[in-house]
Amino acid sequence: MNVKRPTPTLHDVATRSGVSTATVSRCLNFPDQVAERTRKKVMKAIDDLGYSPNFGAKVMAARRTNTIGAIIPTMENAVFARGLQAFQEELRDHGFTMLVASTSYRPDVEEEQVRALVARGADALLLIGHDRDPAVYEFLEAQGVPALVTWAFDAGSQRPSVGFDNKAAMHEMASEVIALGHRNLAFISAKTRMNDRATARYHGIKSAMTEAGLNPDDLLFAETTYSIEHGAEEFEKVMQAPVRPTAVFCGNDVLAVGALRRARELGIKVPQEVSILGFDDIELAQIAYPALTTVHVPHREMGRRAAMALVGLLKDGTPIKPVKLHAAPIFRDTLAAAAGS
Amino acid sequence: MNVKRPTPTLHDVATRSGVSTATVSRCLNFPDQVAERTRKKVMKAIDDLGYSPNFGAKVMAARRTNTIGAIIPTMENAVFARGLQAFQEELRDHGFTMLVASTSYRPDVEEEQVRALVARGADALLLIGHDRDPAVYEFLEAQGVPALVTWAFDAGSQRPSVGFDNKAAMHEMASEVIALGHRNLAFISAKTRMNDRATARYHGIKSAMTEAGLNPDDLLFAETTYSIEHGAEEFEKVMQAPVRPTAVFCGNDVLAVGALRRARELGIKVPQEVSILGFDDIELAQIAYPALTTVHVPHREMGRRAAMALVGLLKDGTPIKPVKLHAAPIFRDTLAAAAGS
Repeated sequence: MNVKRPTPTLHDVATRSGVSTATVSRCLNFPDQVAERTRKKVMKAIDDLGYSPNFGAKVMAARRTNTIGAIIPTMENAVFARGLQAFQEELRDHGFTMLVASTSYRPDVEEEQVRALVARGADALLLIGHDRDPAVYEFLEAQGVPALVTWAFDAGSQRPSVGFDNKAAMHEMASEVIALGHRNLAFISAKTRMNDRATARYHGIKSAMTEAGLNPDDLLFAETTYSIEHGAEEFEKVMQAPVRPTAVFCGNDVLAVGALRRARELGIKVPQEVSILGFDDIELAQIAYPALTTVHVPHREMGRRAAMALVGLLKDGTPIKPVKLHAAPIFRDTLAAAAGS
Repeated sequence: MNVKRPTPTLHDVATRSGVSTATVSRCLNFPDQVAERTRKKVMKAIDDLGYSPNFGAKVMAARRTNTIGAIIPTMENAVFARGLQAFQEELRDHGFTMLVASTSYRPDVEEEQVRALVARGADALLLIGHDRDPAVYEFLEAQGVPALVTWAFDAGSQRPSVGFDNKAAMHEMASEVIALGHRNLAFISAKTRMNDRATARYHGIKSAMTEAGLNPDDLLFAETTYSIEHGAEEFEKVMQAPVRPTAVFCGNDVLAVGALRRARELGIKVPQEVSILGFDDIELAQIAYPALTTVHVPHREMGRRAAMALVGLLKDGTPIKPVKLHAAPIFRDTLAAAAGS
């Protein structure tokens, strides 16, 4: 155990001035965004304690643990597994260990895990998608822990990401489906709230419909949670709609595989009677029978590039540059022309 | 940041006496196992420093982080995902966070990750299987970090496990297969070195052969790494053996799904020409077509019971009792009577 001198920390400043560490951080970095009264209180605490942000940064650097946390929505069905495997391999080549936490798609659990990983000294975090409470980003900033977003790409975001354009990829697949004569479309999605990937995929289908002269409001839309069983249930429901869809898009391959299984159980022929489309191109997509038409996500490339970006930042101070990778449809056996078209 | 008094630690004692922390721990707990000269050196260092093991234990208790590490061989194909999900849910109900590391089935990577998780303050570790360098257990003991083994059950081990009997489960399935007239058997396994689960499954097939009056040396045996592609490759090889097997056991469902896929590509009918058997009963097993006959592992029950055991130990000091769960064959569509029998 090392003996530590009582160096004042950001946290000490926050406690003394009765504000959050995020507010202290804002006072130092963006003083314009803080009420003058608060700013004065914080600055007085900084003076009283002899706190030096530079010294804090140095302590942070010396505190390096060579551990990087990755917080993913789920470990089930290996949706994120191949990307994380590549992320870990690249990190390991540079002397970093990866620790993973999974949130069950729950923002409150994610927040707990962000705190846990920061408390355990993670040098940086990998996060999936941009959508989360801004307080999470403020906390990370205040703690000096950089975070990189992946699995999504948002050119308009302040925060750099290494990902792909979920909307454009789904738009491209939907356009191909519509070109095959499909007019009655359904989308079985993950819950779109706080999930920018699901939201973007939804808008991708809508924009392809608009572009093709269809009414996007005609899209049959169902929200559920990602699981094979839920995919099966929702598929059965959408197939009972007054106007039966001839193409069912699924928010990911797990839902699509469930839809495929229920189609078989119900004696509905795929792709002759209905086309089923996935998203992700995980191993399941090829194992499914018939093999699934889906959007291929460059899992390994994305994981590797995300690791390189964080290693560059931590080792050499190289700022993270956004990286937009290409995700595009891969055509297998569950898509055919609409019957009668 | 809390100010810490310079309390002597186990590590300080080790440094001063020029031995490992594991040796210091042994001197305190099992003095008989240590050479007298070493023991004297260590005891002198303890006196000189004023080290108190009781005080150390108290520091350890106060240091609780409510974080439990799980180190698994792989995140791919969700082999361990369902069990870990249940483990995490149960831990969370008791205020603990789970952090996961994955080793790619490499003992050297596992050792790095044990060190990383202990350095990050994990209160306890979940480990898969018993086989590892004894130095790992000594390190954990010296650091006062309890470890629980799962996915295996070894009544003879000193270390408690919450798992199932891999050998008995595979023996039961192999007996059923042999009862259906199969005489020419193959086993496509993970590498058995440092993998007690793979080793036990291998012996399970052999013991069923012996019991049925077959010569266990006739088992066609191939070792590879767990992946769909390797399962496919090894299946193709074993089917070219001079005496073609009528039943191919696979070390897990991932290999079995690969075998199944290659059989379809080669036009070999399953189960009419060859039966294919998996192990684990992960989601893949039901998605596969035909649906896979495999050994059902009680993933969720195992994860939940493992979490309960660790929570009981950490919260109430309840010693971990070994828990042996039941794993048994589940018959689906890839097993049939041997042709001509």
